[in-house]
Amino acid sequence: MKTIEVRKSITAANDALAHELRSQFTRHGILVLNLIASPGAGKTALIEKTIARLGAAVSIKVVEGDPYTHLDSQRVIRAGAQSIQINTEGGCHLDAQMVGRAVDRFDLDQTDLLIIENVGNLLCPAAWDLGQDATVVVASLAEGADKPLKYPEAFTRAQVVVINKIDLEPHLPVTTAELRRNALTVNPELTVFEVSCLHSTGLDSWCQWIRDRIATKK
Amino acid sequence: MKTIEVRKSITAANDALAHELRSQFTRHGILVLNLIASPGAGKTALIEKTIARLGAAVSIKVVEGDPYTHLDSQRVIRAGAQSIQINTEGGCHLDAQMVGRAVDRFDLDQTDLLIIENVGNLLCPAAWDLGQDATVVVASLAEGADKPLKYPEAFTRAQVVVINKIDLEPHLPVTTAELRRNALTVNPELTVFEVSCLHSTGLDSWCQWIRDRIATKK
Repeated sequence: MKTIEVRKSITAANDALAHELRSQFTRHGILVLNLIASPGAGKTALIEKTIARLGAAVSIKVVEGDPYTHLDSQRVIRAGAQSIQINTEGGCHLDAQMVGRAVDRFDLDQTDLLIIENVGNLLCPAAWDLGQDATVVVASLAEGADKPLKYPEAFTRAQVVVINKIDLEPHLPVTTAELRRNALTVNPELTVFEVSCLHSTGLDSWCQWIRDRIATKK
Repeated sequence: MKTIEVRKSITAANDALAHELRSQFTRHGILVLNLIASPGAGKTALIEKTIARLGAAVSIKVVEGDPYTHLDSQRVIRAGAQSIQINTEGGCHLDAQMVGRAVDRFDLDQTDLLIIENVGNLLCPAAWDLGQDATVVVASLAEGADKPLKYPEAFTRAQVVVINKIDLEPHLPVTTAELRRNALTVNPELTVFEVSCLHSTGLDSWCQWIRDRIATKK
C-alpha cells in the first residue's frame, strides 16, 4: 500500500500546482496546449508548421520535453518561436513543477499561445495535468490504426487528435479512416484533424481551431 | 526520499525474480528475447514474420504485453504460435512477476524460443529485467532518426536493434543509414538489422541470428 499512497500524494501535489498554473495562464489570456504522442509521431513538426502559419499574428512560446538532447527546442527556435527545453533525464512525462519553472522564463504578457510538447510516450503523460486548456494527441498513421484501443487513456483525456503522416497512407496497411474511427470509438467528443506536416496539408483547419480558441481567451 | 526508497525496493524485488526466471529458462534451454519499442513500431509484425519463417523448425511461445485489448495475442495465435496476453490496464511496462505468471501456462520443455513483447513505450520498459537473454529494440524508420539520441536507455541496454519499415524510406525525410548511425553512436556494441515486415525484406539475417542464438542454448 505504501507505493500507492506515495503515488497519490505526488499526483495530488501536481494537481494543486497545475491548478495554480491554469489560473496564471487564464489571467494572462493564454491558450495552453499539451501535446502528447508516441516518440516520432511528429509533435515537433506540427509545432514548426504552426509557428510558420500563425507566428506573424500570434505570439507563441514552446516548452519542449525530452528525456535528453536540445534537438527539439533548437528546431522550434529556428522556426521562429521562443522555446525552453526540459530534459527529464529518463523521466517518462512532464509534471506541473517542470512546466512552472520553464514558463517563469517567458514574458507571459507577450504570449497568446503556449505549446507544451510532452515526452514521447503515449502512456505516462496522460495522467499529469500541466495546467493546459486542451490535451492534443498527435497520432502518426504509420503507427497503425489500433493505438486508440490499446492506449485509450491519452485519447480519453484529450480534446483533439491530430492524425499526422497521412501522406504515407498509400504505402501502409491501414487507413486514416480506420484510425479516426478507433479514436472516436474511444472518445466520441474528440475533434480530429488529418494532416501531413511533411507535405503541409490539412493544417488550415488545425490553425483555424487554434485561432478560434485563442479568441475565447481574450 | 520516501519515493526513491520504494522504487529501489520494487526494482530489487523485480531483479531477484528475473534472476530466478533466467535460471528457469536456462535449465530448459530456451532463448528469451524482450522486445521494446514505441507504440506501432512493428513488434507484433516482426513476431508474426518470425513465426512464419521459423515456426516449422523452432517451438515458439509469445508473451504479449499491452495496456488493453487482446489484439496482439490474437494475431500471434493466427500466425501459429501459443501466446498469453498480459493487460497492464494502463501500466507502462511489464515486470518479472507478470512474465512469471504467464510462462507458468506454457510447456517450457516444448519451447525453444520465448518472445516477450513489452508494452509500447521506449522509456519505462528499459529498466525492468524480465529474465531475457537479449533485449531487442524495434525502431520504426517512420519515427525519424533521432530517437536513439533522445531515448538512449533502451538502446544502451539492448543487444539488438531491428530497424523496421525501411520500405518507407523514399517517402520520409530521414534515412536508414542515419538511424543506424545514431543507434551505434549510443551503443557501438549493437547488432543492427534492417527490415520491412510489410514487404518481408531483410528477415533472413534476423532469423539466422535467432537460430544461431538458440544453438548456443542447447
